[in-house]
Amino acid sequence: MKFTAQQIADALQGKVEGNAEAEVSNLSKIEEGSPGTLSFLANPKYTSYIYTTQASIVIVNEDFEAEKDIQATLIRVKDAYGSFATLLEMYQQAKGKKEGISEKAHISPSATIEEGAYIGEFVSIGDHVFVGKQAQIHPNCSIGANCKIGEESILFAGVKVYDDCLIGNECTLHAGVVIGADGFGFAPQDDNNYRKVPQIGNVIIEDRVEIGANTCIDRATLGSTIIRRGAKIDNLIQIAHNVEIGENTVIAAQTGISGSTKIGKNCMIGGQVGIIGHLNIADEVKIAAQSGIGKSLNTAGDIVEGSPAFSVRDFQRSYIHFRRFDRIVKRINDLEHKVKDQ
Amino acid sequence: MKFTAQQIADALQGKVEGNAEAEVSNLSKIEEGSPGTLSFLANPKYTSYIYTTQASIVIVNEDFEAEKDIQATLIRVKDAYGSFATLLEMYQQAKGKKEGISEKAHISPSATIEEGAYIGEFVSIGDHVFVGKQAQIHPNCSIGANCKIGEESILFAGVKVYDDCLIGNECTLHAGVVIGADGFGFAPQDDNNYRKVPQIGNVIIEDRVEIGANTCIDRATLGSTIIRRGAKIDNLIQIAHNVEIGENTVIAAQTGISGSTKIGKNCMIGGQVGIIGHLNIADEVKIAAQSGIGKSLNTAGDIVEGSPAFSVRDFQRSYIHFRRFDRIVKRINDLEHKVKDQ
Amino acid sequence: MKFTAQQIADALQGKVEGNAEAEVSNLSKIEEGSPGTLSFLANPKYTSYIYTTQASIVIVNEDFEAEKDIQATLIRVKDAYGSFATLLEMYQQAKGKKEGISEKAHISPSATIEEGAYIGEFVSIGDHVFVGKQAQIHPNCSIGANCKIGEESILFAGVKVYDDCLIGNECTLHAGVVIGADGFGFAPQDDNNYRKVPQIGNVIIEDRVEIGANTCIDRATLGSTIIRRGAKIDNLIQIAHNVEIGENTVIAAQTGISGSTKIGKNCMIGGQVGIIGHLNIADEVKIAAQSGIGKSLNTAGDIVEGSPAFSVRDFQRSYIHFRRFDRIVKRINDLEHKVKDQ
Repeated sequence: MKFTAQQIADALQGKVEGNAEAEVSNLSKIEEGSPGTLSFLANPKYTSYIYTTQASIVIVNEDFEAEKDIQATLIRVKDAYGSFATLLEMYQQAKGKKEGISEKAHISPSATIEEGAYIGEFVSIGDHVFVGKQAQIHPNCSIGANCKIGEESILFAGVKVYDDCLIGNECTLHAGVVIGADGFGFAPQDDNNYRKVPQIGNVIIEDRVEIGANTCIDRATLGSTIIRRGAKIDNLIQIAHNVEIGENTVIAAQTGISGSTKIGKNCMIGGQVGIIGHLNIADEVKIAAQSGIGKSLNTAGDIVEGSPAFSVRDFQRSYIHFRRFDRIVKRINDLEHKVKDQ
Repeated sequence: MKFTAQQIADALQGKVEGNAEAEVSNLSKIEEGSPGTLSFLANPKYTSYIYTTQASIVIVNEDFEAEKDIQATLIRVKDAYGSFATLLEMYQQAKGKKEGISEKAHISPSATIEEGAYIGEFVSIGDHVFVGKQAQIHPNCSIGANCKIGEESILFAGVKVYDDCLIGNECTLHAGVVIGADGFGFAPQDDNNYRKVPQIGNVIIEDRVEIGANTCIDRATLGSTIIRRGAKIDNLIQIAHNVEIGENTVIAAQTGISGSTKIGKNCMIGGQVGIIGHLNIADEVKIAAQSGIGKSLNTAGDIVEGSPAFSVRDFQRSYIHFRRFDRIVKRINDLEHKVKDQ
Repeated sequence: MKFTAQQIADALQGKVEGNAEAEVSNLSKIEEGSPGTLSFLANPKYTSYIYTTQASIVIVNEDFEAEKDIQATLIRVKDAYGSFATLLEMYQQAKGKKEGISEKAHISPSATIEEGAYIGEFVSIGDHVFVGKQAQIHPNCSIGANCKIGEESILFAGVKVYDDCLIGNECTLHAGVVIGADGFGFAPQDDNNYRKVPQIGNVIIEDRVEIGANTCIDRATLGSTIIRRGAKIDNLIQIAHNVEIGENTVIAAQTGISGSTKIGKNCMIGGQVGIIGHLNIADEVKIAAQSGIGKSLNTAGDIVEGSPAFSVRDFQRSYIHFRRFDRIVKRINDLEHKVKDQ
């Protein structure tokens, strides 16, 4: 199927600059664009490619100013990245959705599977589970008793959900995710053995949450571990028992959050961050990658870095000195020499 | 089912303070306590909640001293956390245990499944495997040839055990755990290609070990990777080939231990710690979260922090200066100025 | 089956030193060697064991110089580690290979399974998948539509491959690996909600790649995430959308690489390293464990350490001062005192 620049501009409420009849049938990255494809420019790091790309059409922000000639037809829009996302969505929807219940799945007679749901091969669904309309459960998933999988949520292959956990609507859980394993709770004994503290709570995941591949969210000791509406959680993340993640908070891969810590809404947490237990992190806090958080961050909008972390500005200043530490020590040597001489 | 404060105190060998007839039917966290529930106070961080909790009964340590009036009935015990764990155990045991072998499992004719074991749907059990009494293997697990799963051990959904690995009694392996994948061993060649070194050893997990979700324990090149009795290993941990973890050692999430390192008993290792290969870590060593261990720690009871790590006290002292590095450099500037002037 | 030292030396083109008739029937580690086993010495850290080992035969490098008497028969070879790897290979090949297609697998009628392939129980294979000759797909794997699994590649239990991903020949994917989950791409909206950016690209894994247990390699937003020929990737690693890993690059466990970063060939990347997005890492770069890479490394052969990372030599020098920071500050105190006094 082919579309002209004008057709696409109309769909995106954009303005064509160049050949309005230029045609495309596929999407491409600007640095790999080939004739007949449509690309986009949003990240300024990639600006140089717009002058050399072979893509036939490029979507740009309306305030983009070209510094050289551009061969491609441009479509100017308010938000190039958002507009490109719209096209990607259209492309993906054209692929269609899976439906139907595999005969090779195992579904408890007491489970409820609503209309339009997809249950793949070798999926095991426990007693009293509820699977909402249009939900998709891919092969080899395992859903414990009393769970709820909300409408239009997708569980990719091999997701494991322990008993009693609740997953909202329009969530995406990627392959290998584990929801509801026991929190890491052991009481030390006098003989150095540990005694397991049973974990009888659950996990609640609200609507529109996305959880990356092989991420683990432990059940609460009591009560619930909670992931609030719209949170986005990347791959290989550890979320311990009784943690709460606020609305629309974004967490990058391999971060770990210890037990009972509460994280506010609209936070941005980098990759490989560690946060100890029983802390409060205010709304809109930003934490740089690989930071270690040992104290609550009570001020909304704080930006921190380091392990242990402190203000990002102070950290970066200290780190510049750290890099030059040898020269600093030489200055002290010189001073000692001079002061001795006097 | 309801219980009075007196009944619970009797069960826990505790002393009631307040209304001995107060009744509860559920458990709660102290900060979320509601009428009719029983809670506990062990972590001093939560002390303030005891004056406002709606829980009807709170279990406290016998030396707890109230600073204000408390509405709840108290039960004083020697170890509040341990007593609460006892109640959680009673609560969980009341739920009962899974039993029986699913017809949808695949079990090699040469495997032995002992009495009272549970084998879930889509479990694959290889040749000559032995599954002990009351062991539980949840859906979608895969057990290679010649493995042993000890009595009363639980493998949650989607655990994968490679050929020849041995798991003791009363172990818990959480969902997605991988036992016995190949160690990361490659011999560099002159042409920059690597040649795989076959990993023909196995993994031995002794009794009462708990292993968190999606944790990986690699098989030995030769001999065995060994996890000793009572060790507790959290989620998303990497344990490389030929490692040995001592008795009752506790390791927090996302830590990685490189090949052939031996870790003593009763150690406590924080989250996101990295330990290089071929080291020895003495008994009772404590390692702070996010530390990097590059040398053996030969002194029992050492406490270290940093990457690379050194004595926690020295690290924290150094880090205080690091945080104020800018001011320290200003002091050097001032000194240079003064010394020049003189 | 028993072999004499002379037979083994002939197979390895080595030279016997000691009893050429010494017999062995198994392999062992030098520190655990028992009579009737063959061991090797390659890592100098283990040299002391050669004087006490009970192994009957030890393979050593031809330039090894004994400092005391050795009881074992030695076989001197050019490359002791490589020769031992040869013996391990012979040992492993003797175990034989799995073959055949389980009746309990689910295979789309449009899939192609070539001769000699093994498909285990509860494997799900989607439409138009191609599985090459002698490929092995262990139980509970899930292969999406349009994937290719090359000849002689092995997918251990519970590997999940999303639609459209291509895996080359002679690859090994360990248990729990996830190939092709969505990249972590979300466009921020004015109301703080995020909008998912569909990820319509794929993952391409070239020949002879090994990928460790529970590692995740995300699909590209557009185009392909690419792992080049011969790369070795350890357990629990995160490789984000549109990343490219060069030929024969080796990455240790728990490292994370953010979106669109390109890594050169023959690099060595330590464990728990984090690399931010949109960077270039030159060929043959070495990155120390736990480092954080925030800028491109454009010089081939660079060696860096730290978070953020810089030259390993400078880092180690700075870190020595950091460890002694307290003494350095005391020197400044003294200087201030003296300068004041003068």
